[in-house]
Amino acid sequence: MPKLILVRHGQSQWNLENRFTGWWDVDLTAKGEDEARAAGALLGAKGLLPSVAFTSFQTRAIRTLHFALEAAGRLWIPETKDWRLNERHYGGLTGLDKAETAAKHGEDQVKIWRRSFDIPPPPQEAGSTFDLKADPRYAGIAIPDTESLKDTIARVLPYYDSAIAPQLQAGETVIIAAHGNSLRALVKHLSGISDADITGLEIPTGQPIVYELDDALNAVDRYYLAER
Amino acid sequence: MPKLILVRHGQSQWNLENRFTGWWDVDLTAKGEDEARAAGALLGAKGLLPSVAFTSFQTRAIRTLHFALEAAGRLWIPETKDWRLNERHYGGLTGLDKAETAAKHGEDQVKIWRRSFDIPPPPQEAGSTFDLKADPRYAGIAIPDTESLKDTIARVLPYYDSAIAPQLQAGETVIIAAHGNSLRALVKHLSGISDADITGLEIPTGQPIVYELDDALNAVDRYYLAER
Repeated sequence: MPKLILVRHGQSQWNLENRFTGWWDVDLTAKGEDEARAAGALLGAKGLLPSVAFTSFQTRAIRTLHFALEAAGRLWIPETKDWRLNERHYGGLTGLDKAETAAKHGEDQVKIWRRSFDIPPPPQEAGSTFDLKADPRYAGIAIPDTESLKDTIARVLPYYDSAIAPQLQAGETVIIAAHGNSLRALVKHLSGISDADITGLEIPTGQPIVYELDDALNAVDRYYLAER
Repeated sequence: MPKLILVRHGQSQWNLENRFTGWWDVDLTAKGEDEARAAGALLGAKGLLPSVAFTSFQTRAIRTLHFALEAAGRLWIPETKDWRLNERHYGGLTGLDKAETAAKHGEDQVKIWRRSFDIPPPPQEAGSTFDLKADPRYAGIAIPDTESLKDTIARVLPYYDSAIAPQLQAGETVIIAAHGNSLRALVKHLSGISDADITGLEIPTGQPIVYELDDALNAVDRYYLAER
């Protein structure tokens, strides 16, 4: 029975500061590193050992994967990094903390962007400090200016279908270390969650979520590994 | 012009204890981690930024790669792990320190095994503490019982030709984080070093060695990055 393990990266510096991060490459805090190690130790303790790994192009997810695999004794498994597993791009909100965002746009508007399925925040302004056009990791990639959750899902799911699903179908135990919204895309798909409900679903950091799948990759069971 | 960067893993616990390590999965010491970070910082400082990475199945090389890529701001590049980049398998010497080996086999015999090109140490005994047959990373792989340097070269070079050379031919700047003897195999090949001379060539830990190659992947220049 194929198994899929989802791990949201541990706490980052901007999680701590309550800033919109999106594609900006903010690293883990020491607490975030510990969360990642604990996730891997849990995999080892439960004997749920991944055989293939995927992660995003973002340091906090890649390092979460590495800490987790190391703690699980699985650092040697193949890993693939892809930008389509990146966090949702928060456009012009990137870098703003809660207070700055509310001051600039109003609390109600911010709630709409955070909670709506298909309304993206304003695009990133030209010349923004957080512009990624010069970042060599995105050379040749059409970096979005902003994304709704719907937009994020529209790039995560084709990647899941083309790159990850074949590994599951081959019987691999797949781990994906990624981000709140790229993981929401997968949970929505696998658990059949509605557009309205998915934006309210919180995925905790460093907590392995396990999907047991049938041969057609339909979810048979979903649980937090810590609860089994 | 394609470039190939070779990095031998930083100090491991058994380097420190002067034990034959081979395929046994000994981790880096804190000093070894620092060496790996310094290697990556040097790549960053010199602007020699790898675009594709290869490493072995062994923790000390994988972690060296990760520390180095992180320090160079390149953690996001694709990486491939393969057992054919593993250290030479030291057979029945695995786990023995200098004094134990000399007491068991005599100093002269040990020198022959260390320095000869094609004489392997005695095979690992059945039931050895250091038997890897139950290690899942080697499932499906014919683990050698022992290897001469010649044997090591015989599995490193076909892998170089089939997996690494095409990346160089495509213009990538390739980094390989590996081991004293798997890197000797590559240096012997690229620099045309004789069977007699290669066993005396010491590859320092954590020191990036750079090959500049022509389109046919012949070495145009070889240097320690620290000296440029």
